Parts: sequence; structure tokens; C-alpha cells
Amino acid sequence: MLDFNTLNAEQWDSLCDTADLIRKNPGDYADARRGMVMATLFYEPSTRTQLSFQSAMLRLGGQVIGFSDPGNSSVAKGESLRDTIKIVSNYSDVIVIRNPLEGAAFAASLYSPAPVINAGDGGHLHPTQTMADLYTLRRELGRCDGLNIGVCGDLLNGRTVHSLLSALCKYKNNKFYLISTPALRIPGYCVDELRASGAEFCEVNTIEECVSGLDMLYMTRIQRERFISAEEYNRQAGIYVLTADKLKTAKRELIIMHPLPKVDEISPEVDDDPRAKYFEQAKNGLYIRMALILRLTEGGGLVNRAPKNCVYAIPNERLCQNPRCVTAHEKYLPALTLKRDTPYCEYCGHKIMHN
Amino acid sequence: MLDFNTLNAEQWDSLCDTADLIRKNPGDYADARRGMVMATLFYEPSTRTQLSFQSAMLRLGGQVIGFSDPGNSSVAKGESLRDTIKIVSNYSDVIVIRNPLEGAAFAASLYSPAPVINAGDGGHLHPTQTMADLYTLRRELGRCDGLNIGVCGDLLNGRTVHSLLSALCKYKNNKFYLISTPALRIPGYCVDELRASGAEFCEVNTIEECVSGLDMLYMTRIQRERFISAEEYNRQAGIYVLTADKLKTAKRELIIMHPLPKVDEISPEVDDDPRAKYFEQAKNGLYIRMALILRLTEGGGLVNRAPKNCVYAIPNERLCQNPRCVTAHEKYLPALTLKRDTPYCEYCGHKIMHN
Amino acid sequence: MLDFNTLNAEQWDSLCDTADLIRKNPGDYADARRGMVMATLFYEPSTRTQLSFQSAMLRLGGQVIGFSDPGNSSVAKGESLRDTIKIVSNYSDVIVIRNPLEGAAFAASLYSPAPVINAGDGGHLHPTQTMADLYTLRRELGRCDGLNIGVCGDLLNGRTVHSLLSALCKYKNNKFYLISTPALRIPGYCVDELRASGAEFCEVNTIEECVSGLDMLYMTRIQRERFISAEEYNRQAGIYVLTADKLKTAKRELIIMHPLPKVDEISPEVDDDPRAKYFEQAKNGLYIRMALILRLTEGGGLVNRAPKNCVYAIPNERLCQNPRCVTAHEKYLPALTLKRDTPYCEYCGHKIMHN
Repeated sequence: MLDFNTLNAEQWDSLCDTADLIRKNPGDYADARRGMVMATLFYEPSTRTQLSFQSAMLRLGGQVIGFSDPGNSSVAKGESLRDTIKIVSNYSDVIVIRNPLEGAAFAASLYSPAPVINAGDGGHLHPTQTMADLYTLRRELGRCDGLNIGVCGDLLNGRTVHSLLSALCKYKNNKFYLISTPALRIPGYCVDELRASGAEFCEVNTIEECVSGLDMLYMTRIQRERFISAEEYNRQAGIYVLTADKLKTAKRELIIMHPLPKVDEISPEVDDDPRAKYFEQAKNGLYIRMALILRLTEGGGLVNRAPKNCVYAIPNERLCQNPRCVTAHEKYLPALTLKRDTPYCEYCGHKIMHN
Repeated sequence: MLDFNTLNAEQWDSLCDTADLIRKNPGDYADARRGMVMATLFYEPSTRTQLSFQSAMLRLGGQVIGFSDPGNSSVAKGESLRDTIKIVSNYSDVIVIRNPLEGAAFAASLYSPAPVINAGDGGHLHPTQTMADLYTLRRELGRCDGLNIGVCGDLLNGRTVHSLLSALCKYKNNKFYLISTPALRIPGYCVDELRASGAEFCEVNTIEECVSGLDMLYMTRIQRERFISAEEYNRQAGIYVLTADKLKTAKRELIIMHPLPKVDEISPEVDDDPRAKYFEQAKNGLYIRMALILRLTEGGGLVNRAPKNCVYAIPNERLCQNPRCVTAHEKYLPALTLKRDTPYCEYCGHKIMHN
Repeated sequence: MLDFNTLNAEQWDSLCDTADLIRKNPGDYADARRGMVMATLFYEPSTRTQLSFQSAMLRLGGQVIGFSDPGNSSVAKGESLRDTIKIVSNYSDVIVIRNPLEGAAFAASLYSPAPVINAGDGGHLHPTQTMADLYTLRRELGRCDGLNIGVCGDLLNGRTVHSLLSALCKYKNNKFYLISTPALRIPGYCVDELRASGAEFCEVNTIEECVSGLDMLYMTRIQRERFISAEEYNRQAGIYVLTADKLKTAKRELIIMHPLPKVDEISPEVDDDPRAKYFEQAKNGLYIRMALILRLTEGGGLVNRAPKNCVYAIPNERLCQNPRCVTAHEKYLPALTLKRDTPYCEYCGHKIMHN
């Protein structure tokens, strides 16, 4: 599971059904993966995500090995990602990888006989977070279409938001309210994708001006260092803090989501509002991860492999110019490009420029 | 399990009985908690305590997730203790927390549907260590009353000693010998508690002057930096090192205890003395922790919740002036105070001053 | 399991047979050690080895506790190795230890009722790596005698190579090609051991001059800092990089091994050569470790204890002059020496000089 968008609607529905079943009768699954071992390779720390994956595997009766500190791993000795994966896949039945390089999980999957789950590859993708988000929408609102959706915070740098918008604009009749400062608007490629999908959307400056019509409000962190100056931050930050007051005009059926951890962007009293669903969302993340592990380890069809219609170039002819792409650091990787009119790097998704 | 003193005698006896049973027939308990997950949230490192809790849960057939390095946790991103607990309690059936802030475990328990075990909250409490100590007394001497008890070392700063004295002075007819340098005598509030209990006690300067009458000698570390000067340390340190020589006049039935790890305060040859029980004490810690986890996860009555007779103040009216209290750092916490004549902070136990 | 050489041929064959059985029918062993706990005490990081041991125990149905960061352990508080072992052996049924001090695993075994496995003690021994190597030879070539064996790289400092040579020269009719720069030749004591065994060997400068006759080529890392100067490194390093080109004259039945992790010493295209067996070797390491844990925890006879024919000296009469020996740091250790004509330190294997 490398990219949420490779799942079709039927696969996704089936995964959600499984998550519902596990939630209802966890005891039925307590031995489902007994004897299996999951490896969690966390090249950068993420306690939340790692604990969620570990708990998911343990509650299926499986076991967990792994590391969470790159300083302690063989990587510190200069081992290639390929070697690490080839060896760890001998020790485990499924690999969960988090890596700051974009496309690292995809690169890992090229060398792993065991299924690979992307738990975040730099600013690129974090598909199990998107799954938790959409599964929450499904559970709380019963659908993912025909919704008025507000996303608020740092829309420029928020990977979670990009993935969520990309997934939701594939559903019909959603309208998006993009709430941010002018300097933190969503990047051009997201706007392009929204337009291409035909979805309705508008960019607004405050929560107040759109909250009354929303079915879902997705909050994210605004980082102090993203503002031009400290004064600018102090002047603006409060605008994007969700308070009980700002929710006065909101619908009773609204749901409030957040990828967590949150810091100051949601006022503590909102936690007690029944419309706050972010802790529920974290819980849903556990069940959808259990469903995903269950599916991948039954030898099912979700596993992404090197696509058939790709061009293999010799290793040192790197095509992608993105400096954060995994191909910039792991030089042996084959230069894959899909045969499409506009070629995108198969690892990190960046457009490939030809001179 | 936040504070040993909240257990009544009957609950404590029942816990010891369970520990005895587990010790006798560990195989009967090997699947007792299969399918359950324990989270160990260690905000400061303590290998000893963490390994003991992990082993306890694993030997009950359960599983363990957690962290031991605050740098890797979401706390580093500024997440509140409340949020961490709300999320982790979704992933686990019981939470073990160690935190440098006094009252942190109690604060955690306010937000956790899962039972919370205090594995040390700063200089405040460490109830499972006290349990290991008292369970050892019960096993080795058959009782916790009518004993001559020596405690030796840094009595001013030793949390373990404070908790032990507090627990033992509730038993009848114990006499305490408090062995330390004048500068490292036990703090005033401990003296108050001993006096209030009616227990007999005296402060002495050397092990030799009281060892012959002791039933139990509890050794603790003296840290070099606690002394006024290096000369003072060199002159005095040897006085508080237990050697075979100093044990010459001791009873054959004496037991020697230590919370471990020890450094130089017990001479290596004492390890081979049959009266040295500190390794046995560590082993007892494992069994009493198994008993505790077993009890808490059967939905029993040991769980501490926010007391019913408390006053909830608005969050920013903090009552406790202790700078190491968890309420000084987690600003949203309700200001709880028991309706007692002298109000104590319900989190950290410090007396609350009124201006 | 402290030293591979303490195994006799029969014990080793039986261990390999068990590993073969596990490999064939892993399901038969999935519950073999259910209810048991292994402690992995890693005083220096080694992700590879630790993950392999953890996976081995988990696949036998057992559980794992431990640490991988000395900074987080009680050692940081000055606890002796003896105390750590005495306590941890209460929590676990088998102990795996990696420690930078030579002889540390042997020292640990003196105080542990649970069997101790040496996972590397400084520059001294790493018996489970040697087991993985010999088990791979047995599986791939069907025998460990009558072979032409090349070992290439930093032969002066490579612990893995010393152990491998020591083990292989006990088999008949092996011929060794020692491929290195003059400055990185194997140390005198290894040469002595080869000579004493009667094995044929020669020292050569390049892979090319001997590769065509080899049955096995064992590659190791050359570290840049081992060279006298950067120019010297740049001039020489390429000589010890294995490329497809250098393998042109090699036999079809050759096997290429490497203890891993590798960095630049094997060119990426060699990975796809069917003669490259290093990933297979890592996999074999898992199965032979499973077999070893299985054997040790059935109460079998592999456990090394303090030898009967030893002289116990008083602790502060340390005999061994090796500054990296565990006896130089853990002062309480008994000064063991076997009654042999030439006395060797029983901990680290160094010759003991008498003044």
C-alpha cells in the first residue's frame, strides 16, 4: 500500500467493511495473523503512527520488530535502502516504512518480496492517514460525496491535506472551502487536480465566513516558522484557532477532524464538543490499519509492484530533478517512467522536465 | 494504580496472594491476558522499571507498545499529555506512565478510559517499587509490623524511602532507624507523617550503631553531588557503604534490601551474603506487577478516578504553587482539591498555600 | 553460546539439522517457545543482529524485551554488568548480549542462571555470525572441507574473518587465499592458528589472481580510515571492489558471501549474479539463530559456564593486560585462567604475560 489512489472504489469499500467487522468483533481477529512478523522501519520518528501500526499488528495476533531511530540503524553505516529491504524482508512478512525521501516506500517495494506499506515518504504521501480520514467520513456521515468540506491551516505545506483533497475530489458533488492565509494557499498542482476533477472550490480567509454550511471541517497545524515575521504570526495565528465561539453558527451534524498531534490550533474546550471527532479518527486509524495488514498478508491484490509499462534506464541516467526524490540519494534505482503524455516520476510524483 | 496508599489492607493482601499464586504456577497465567496490549509511556528513561513491566505483561500473554525516549515522541511536537493519553488509550488496554512531572500519572488517569499505572512521577511517587518492597517483607519476614527497620543513605532526596516509610508507618509497632548524614536527613513532611502515625523513630549517623537490632536494612544510593564539597564526600561516603564487616553484629534473620540499581554503596562481597535480598526484591517486583496488571485489566476496583468530592476550578486558576507539579505545565488541567481542612494538591500532594 | 569453537562437530551438525527442519516446516515451530521471554541487551547498536535475534525468538512463539541504547540503560547510572545480568535474568529465559568489551558475554554468563548468547563482544567473537557463515557453506556447497576459500578486505581488523578462518581451519584440506593490501594482512595470532592447524594458505594482493580457483569468496568492508592517506585509499580501494568483470574467470559453482552491511565493496550488478549468496546468508542467520535459541532453552548442554579447572584469584589481582578486556572495567570479576602451558585470559582470549 504505497498510494491511496491506486485503490479502486470496490477495494476501498471492502477494506472499510473489514474495518467495521474488526471493530464490532475484535475477538474474531485476535489470532488472525499469529506467527507473522511485521517490520516497522522508521527512518524518522513518528510515535503516533508507529504505535498505531504496532498495536494493529499485535491485535491481529502478529508480532513486531523494527527501529525508530536512524542513528541506530545500519543506514548509519552507509547501507543502501535496497540492501536493508532485502535483508529485513527475510525477517518479516510485511514491512511498514517511513522515510524522509519522497518515493522511498515505492523504491523499497521494488526489492521486497513482502508487501510494503508507506507510512509517510517525506512531503509526498501518507496513505494510511488518508484512509483513516475517509473511513471516518464514511462512519460519521455515511458517505464521501455531496459534502461541503472545509480545510483549514497551512494548506501550502500540509501533506495530509493534499492527499485528502486528491482523494475526495474523485467523489461527486463535493465543494471545498480552502481556509488559509494568502501566503499558505494550496500549491498549484493541487489546484490543477481540483480543477481537472470538476470539483467546486473556493479560497477563503477565515473559518467564520464558511463554517455554517460545512459538513466537515479539517483542521491542521500552522507552524510559526511559516510566517514571514513574528508580528505577522501574532497578528494572524488566532484567525486559524478553532474556538467554541467560532462554532456557534455551525451545523449540529458538522464533524471536526484533525490528523493529530495538535498544538494550539484547537481550543481545549472544543474537545468536549460532540462534533469533535479527531480522537475517534485516531481510533479509526487503528481499525483501518488492521484491515489493511489483514488484506496485504493474505496475499491479496493490493500490493504495488514495479508497473509493467515502464521504461528501465541505466541507473546513472536519473530522470527526476526533484532533490528530495529517493532517486537522488539511492543511485542504483532504475529510472521508471510511465508511458504517459506528461511523464511523472514514478517514485515521487514530480513532473519530469526534458531539456 | 497511582498511589500505594489508596489500597486498603484487604486489597493489598489479595494482590500479594495473587503474586504468590503466579510465582508458584506461572504456567496458569501464561495466557491470562492474551489479546491485550499495554502501553509503556516513558517520558524519562528507566530501563529497569520498563523491562520489569514489559516482562510482566508478556508473561501474562499480553503485548506491549510504547516509547522510552521523549525526543522521539509527539511530545516533542508540543502535544498535551491529555491528547497523548486520549489517543494511546485507543491503542491499549492499560497504560504505564513515567514522567518527570509530579502528578503526571494522576493527570493522565483523568483522561484515560484504560487503567493507568504510575511508574514514577518525578520526586513524588513510585507505587510499584513500594509494592515490591512490601511484598518482599511479607515473603521474607512474614509480616510488615513489629519490625526494627533501618533506612540508610540519602534520606532527603530518596523518593523510594519516603514512600516506604509512609507505607510502613501505617503498620503497628514498627521502629525506624533513619541512618544518614545530618545534611541528608528525611524532609519535614516525612517526619510529620511518622509522628502523626505514632511510630517510634530515631535519627542516627552510622549503620554500626543500630545494625545489631535490625530486622530489615534498606540501603539507597548517596550521590556525590549531594555533598557540600568533594572533601566532605570523601570523608563521609565510606560511612554509608555496607560491607561484610559492618554486618558482623547483625542478626541472622536480617534482610538487606535496595531499590537498585546500586553503585558503590554495597560492597560486592555482601551480594553473596544470604541476607542480601535485593535481587530477590527485583524478582518480587516482577510478580507483584503481574498481579497488579492482572487485577487492573479484569475491570476491578483499583482504578483511581477523579475523586467525587473535588472542586473543579476554571483551568487558568491554578491552585498549586509547586513548580514541578504537572499543573504548572499542562495548563488545561482542572484545579482539583479535596475538601479537607488542610488542602493538598490532588496531583502532586503539595500543601496549597492561600494568600 | 559464547564461542563457536566450544561446539563439537556433532553438536554443530545437530544444530544445522534443526535449522534445516525449521526452514522446511516453520509452522511446526511457531509455538515452540510460547511463554518464554528473551532479553536483548545491546550496549552498542547493531540493528541487523538485533532484528535477526528478535525475529528468531518471535517466530518460535516467544517474546522479546531489551534495550539498544546504552544511554537509556541503568549502565548510565554506573550499574555493574553483574547486577544488570542478575536482575535481567529474573525477567527472561535467555539473554542475548552485545557489548564493546572483549569477554563481556563470558563475564555475563558467570552470573546468569539463564543461558547467554554472545552477539558480539568488541573485536573478540561473534559466534552467531560464524554459524550463519558455516551453515551457508553447508547448504550451498554441501561441505566445509576440501575448499578453496578466498577472504578479501580488511583482514587485520575484521573480527568476522578471524572467527571464520579459525572455524574453517579445523576442517580438512581447505586452502585459504588471503586477499588484502600489505598493510591490512591478517594478524599474527591468526597466522599462528592457521599454521598450527596445518592448513595451506597464501597472501595475495588482488582478487583477480586467485578468483578462478575459488569455491567461496568472502568479501568484507575496507574502511577508508584504515589507509595511511586519502591518496593511498583512492589508489587502492578499487582493487578490493568486487565487480562483474572480476568474476568473469570464476567458477560457476563459486559462492560469494559477505557479513553485511556492505557499502561500496560489491558493485550493485553483482547482487543479480546467482553466485551472490549474501542475502541468503542473512536468511540462514535467522534459521540458525532459531535453532540455537531452541536448543539453549530446552535446557540442553550448549551453555557455557565457568570452567571447572580454573584458578580464582582475588578480584583486584587482575591477570589480563588487554585494555579492552571486560576485566579492565568490571573490577569484581574473578581472574580465571585455564591450567594450560600458555595461559590465555578466559574472558577475552589474550595471552597473559608474566613478569
